[in-house]
Amino acid sequence: MKNVRIVLVETSHGGNIGAVARAMKNMCLEDLVLVNPRQFMTDECVARASGADDILHEAQVCRSLDEAVADCSLVVGASARLRTVAWPQVDPRECAALVVPRARQGRVALVFGRERTGLTNAELERCQYLVHIPSNPDYSSLNLAMAVQVLSYELMMQDPQGSAEQASPESSPTTAGDMQGLFGHLEQALEDIGFLDPRKSDKLMRRLKRLFYRAEPDLDEIRILRGILSAAQGRKSARRDS
Amino acid sequence: MKNVRIVLVETSHGGNIGAVARAMKNMCLEDLVLVNPRQFMTDECVARASGADDILHEAQVCRSLDEAVADCSLVVGASARLRTVAWPQVDPRECAALVVPRARQGRVALVFGRERTGLTNAELERCQYLVHIPSNPDYSSLNLAMAVQVLSYELMMQDPQGSAEQASPESSPTTAGDMQGLFGHLEQALEDIGFLDPRKSDKLMRRLKRLFYRAEPDLDEIRILRGILSAAQGRKSARRDS
Repeated sequence: MKNVRIVLVETSHGGNIGAVARAMKNMCLEDLVLVNPRQFMTDECVARASGADDILHEAQVCRSLDEAVADCSLVVGASARLRTVAWPQVDPRECAALVVPRARQGRVALVFGRERTGLTNAELERCQYLVHIPSNPDYSSLNLAMAVQVLSYELMMQDPQGSAEQASPESSPTTAGDMQGLFGHLEQALEDIGFLDPRKSDKLMRRLKRLFYRAEPDLDEIRILRGILSAAQGRKSARRDS
Repeated sequence: MKNVRIVLVETSHGGNIGAVARAMKNMCLEDLVLVNPRQFMTDECVARASGADDILHEAQVCRSLDEAVADCSLVVGASARLRTVAWPQVDPRECAALVVPRARQGRVALVFGRERTGLTNAELERCQYLVHIPSNPDYSSLNLAMAVQVLSYELMMQDPQGSAEQASPESSPTTAGDMQGLFGHLEQALEDIGFLDPRKSDKLMRRLKRLFYRAEPDLDEIRILRGILSAAQGRKSARRDS
């Protein structure tokens, strides 16, 4: 499945990256992106990759999650169950059912956070969906590579023939970069028109992001939305100028 | 799920045993049995258990697979896909669907072989079912702890409430020990009556084992079968004596 990318954010232990590479190759994944790894090609990393060195050698290293997922049309973040955050949550099987059809059209990222602390709230909000692996409520934290293994296994069960390998070239789906561009523009525009108090905007922005993620706008629609935002900003500026 | 036992046969690396303990505890399993481990409580074992020390401390160490599964009513062995062996094979999801209901009545064992070479044929024949994790045909060998993680995850998905925790005390299902007793008796009896050439008996015995596994005899039926075998042996001896 060439179109499914595994993104590891600020991994502490090289051994875990090696184990992730092995798990990926076992499940026919090959696109690994590391965001600011603390260690990478350590001896333990190579040992635990156990022959999946090609995945390690071709891994990209990025400086931010935005960069890592900029060309992805679907971004799913792994997280502990969040009872308080009303973000769309799926289990690994539902995740695979979302990812496999989308990966036939464009790139999909599965994002995994730090060993101890996972993904930050800001990082989780860059994901359209959160995926949670059911686990013992008294001992819930899976090893990073184990989490990658479980999600990758579900992709393999969903698509044993690897049909999600071929992207159809004619389609050009909306990417995470397009959506972040829209959100940045939206937030600025809401401030400019005096709708949004920047100090209190987090909750409102989360609701709006959720709404637009759900709407899954295509590129034309994003252009239209941003045109509206520009117009609103312009009119306000114009009004302010006058 | 107290009634599901993980059995590791001749594991080479203590680190893998630690990682298995963590994966088990994450998925609410606690019964770990080690058959002749090459290493056990190494530093790496404890480090990778990452707080699941209770599983390690309570693990039993056995000298044979027979001993490890003697009290189990269902034994499933993890294996690479075997195209040549006509043994009942399931995928991890089907495995969970078999295991969870059986674990409500008695003990079930999931058996995992050596890191490099897996289970021997003799060991696989002690299993009623073989479970195969779908994987990349060009790179199919999962890390041992990853395989435990995937099968345990499927148990968790099948039984998120852990209802397979309570064994119903009134039932006393057939165990692997009972079946091995029957098979040993059968083989001896077939030799005694001159039906079986011990040098060529492997294939035939495999077919007969498969048949009796499929039949799932209860304890009464096993007693009846063994009574028949004894009678056949006695008559033959009697005839030979006369």
